[in-house]
Amino acid sequence: MHIRYLSTPALLLDEDRLARNIRRLATHLAPFGVGFRLHAKTLKCVEVARRAMTTPEGPVAVSTLAEAEWFAERGIPDICYAVGIAPGKFERALALRERGAALSLLLDSVEAARALADFGEARGHSFDVLLEVDSDGHRAGLEPGAPALLEAAGILAARGQRVAGVLTHAGSAYELAEPSPEAFAALAEQERAAALAAARVLRAAGHMCPVVSVGSTPTALFGEDFSGVTEVRAGVYLTQDLVMAGLGVCAVEDIALSVLCTVIGRRGSDGALVTDAGWTALSRDAGLPGRFAEFGYGLVSDEHGKLLPGLRVSETNQEHGLITAGPGAPVPPLPVGTLLRILPVHACATATGFETVHLCRGAEEMASWPRCRGW
Amino acid sequence: MHIRYLSTPALLLDEDRLARNIRRLATHLAPFGVGFRLHAKTLKCVEVARRAMTTPEGPVAVSTLAEAEWFAERGIPDICYAVGIAPGKFERALALRERGAALSLLLDSVEAARALADFGEARGHSFDVLLEVDSDGHRAGLEPGAPALLEAAGILAARGQRVAGVLTHAGSAYELAEPSPEAFAALAEQERAAALAAARVLRAAGHMCPVVSVGSTPTALFGEDFSGVTEVRAGVYLTQDLVMAGLGVCAVEDIALSVLCTVIGRRGSDGALVTDAGWTALSRDAGLPGRFAEFGYGLVSDEHGKLLPGLRVSETNQEHGLITAGPGAPVPPLPVGTLLRILPVHACATATGFETVHLCRGAEEMASWPRCRGW
Repeated sequence: MHIRYLSTPALLLDEDRLARNIRRLATHLAPFGVGFRLHAKTLKCVEVARRAMTTPEGPVAVSTLAEAEWFAERGIPDICYAVGIAPGKFERALALRERGAALSLLLDSVEAARALADFGEARGHSFDVLLEVDSDGHRAGLEPGAPALLEAAGILAARGQRVAGVLTHAGSAYELAEPSPEAFAALAEQERAAALAAARVLRAAGHMCPVVSVGSTPTALFGEDFSGVTEVRAGVYLTQDLVMAGLGVCAVEDIALSVLCTVIGRRGSDGALVTDAGWTALSRDAGLPGRFAEFGYGLVSDEHGKLLPGLRVSETNQEHGLITAGPGAPVPPLPVGTLLRILPVHACATATGFETVHLCRGAEEMASWPRCRGW
Repeated sequence: MHIRYLSTPALLLDEDRLARNIRRLATHLAPFGVGFRLHAKTLKCVEVARRAMTTPEGPVAVSTLAEAEWFAERGIPDICYAVGIAPGKFERALALRERGAALSLLLDSVEAARALADFGEARGHSFDVLLEVDSDGHRAGLEPGAPALLEAAGILAARGQRVAGVLTHAGSAYELAEPSPEAFAALAEQERAAALAAARVLRAAGHMCPVVSVGSTPTALFGEDFSGVTEVRAGVYLTQDLVMAGLGVCAVEDIALSVLCTVIGRRGSDGALVTDAGWTALSRDAGLPGRFAEFGYGLVSDEHGKLLPGLRVSETNQEHGLITAGPGAPVPPLPVGTLLRILPVHACATATGFETVHLCRGAEEMASWPRCRGW
């Protein structure tokens, strides 16, 4: 079916680019013999995940318990819930494990370890727990040398919980002042060093700590040494986006995701094209503070996916997007009804608004797949 | 039920504040004897709309056809689809009207008028059409004196379509450099003048133009003259948000919407509280460029809705929110598991992530209602 029959806005996934992005990371990681755990948080779609996972059963990382349930119910049981768990979510995690999912949980404090140990003990259940390690001061995690690391592990082990290993994520990869292949490789080494240091501390205290999990799209694609690491995680590499292109992680031509929209008018004052893809479709994510302003809320392709140079979505309202050209440059007076494809600034944020993703080759829809949403 | 039994993040709506916000606008508009059309785009929830609409059947304005279908199927037929319609959506609009909805459509160009006239004529259907008028150069609409206004109306009328009237929205109300009650009143007068000027042009040419529709939350709440206007539209006034508070449209204490979240940890470097409400829950909307930075991605209340002064969500990742205090100020070391409520910067954007809205009194859930999503 031609994509003109879709109701706009609609989320399109280019099949060739997806395949190329999957191949690129697989090729990069192959020589290292390291495991790969797909982070499913960008598209939250089983059918897409199946094209990238190393086995039909996983492994995957997820960002919500709703995703964990979604994947488990669809035959993918090897799941890491890669966000620190709140005590209010223990019950749902237990239910998933009792239904047979190999769900691992993440935490980074003595308090959370104690809460989970209390719950596990009371319910006679042994959870698989990863301790989150801070490799770059970005957000969460314990420093490898923090006494709390050993204390948390000790509490878990003493109360019948399984210390499955350590996990880190160099979220600062997206914020490097001077991104380059070398800088990403250095950060990958920093992830590896932090995770291994934490694993050594735990192992010296008698915890087996079988899992050493690291990753982000930039560090996975540019890392040069994964020795000691058991699995690399990456997610947005599947679709890429303008932030990744801006950081030099990919080219704009690698971006596999786009939002199909329709021109609904032109602004009188400057001829800006008005489309039906506002911030509910594109998200309000404009990349990183003070950077990538040139992308606005997205670059613009024609319905076949060919980039229209110089155009960008410069403003969005709830259901209106405004496309302008650079200062002084004319905007082509495309007729009302013209279909356009907007390349996302941040693919994870853009995908969030959509219930369905449409796999395409050129302007042909090949398949249409449901996405998990909510929590 | 106490809100602690909700899975976080969850969208809460304070019943008392909602009632107060509804009363405030109704009281302001009553002396003018002008009609009121609730814009349902913020919560997209029938049960909430029923508390604000002037009759059980409406009227409402909506921002997507999915909302129009949602409201019509639930017994609310008087609907204005207040976004310029794309030709690809004519078929769905026709289906809704054939099922009995009093759905009016909006357009602002000769091209769109011709496309709709072609379609209506081919299908033997007469649509109710509003012509969008530009009152502030913000986004869409024809200037009242533009020849295209009469030309579009002429095409519609000649081809059996009904020119129902004119509609304008002073979206620039949110961007006033120096917002004040007087500035909003002046902008309301600008809306009224533009809409009436357009109506006069149309009427002089023989179109009856019964509807003269204006509105935005600031202009509805502060307008001082609605003579000649047949209906005022407003939506976000129901919940208000931090942008509205920042503009002086309401007080922070009027904000009826919040996102319930759980503390899942504390960042080692600075004690920032890490919560499970990231940008999927709060949205990436940080208000207006260069303004309201003090709100970050939201201010913070305790689980009862009491503001915790000085705290704000300063960073968000997909499923992590980071709460910090002002420079040098300490963040209270709240334990893992603590419930907090985040006040939204932009209520419409924050609500978008949620399937359900929970009506609350204090920390008690009184009802739980579905929201429409998608397009």
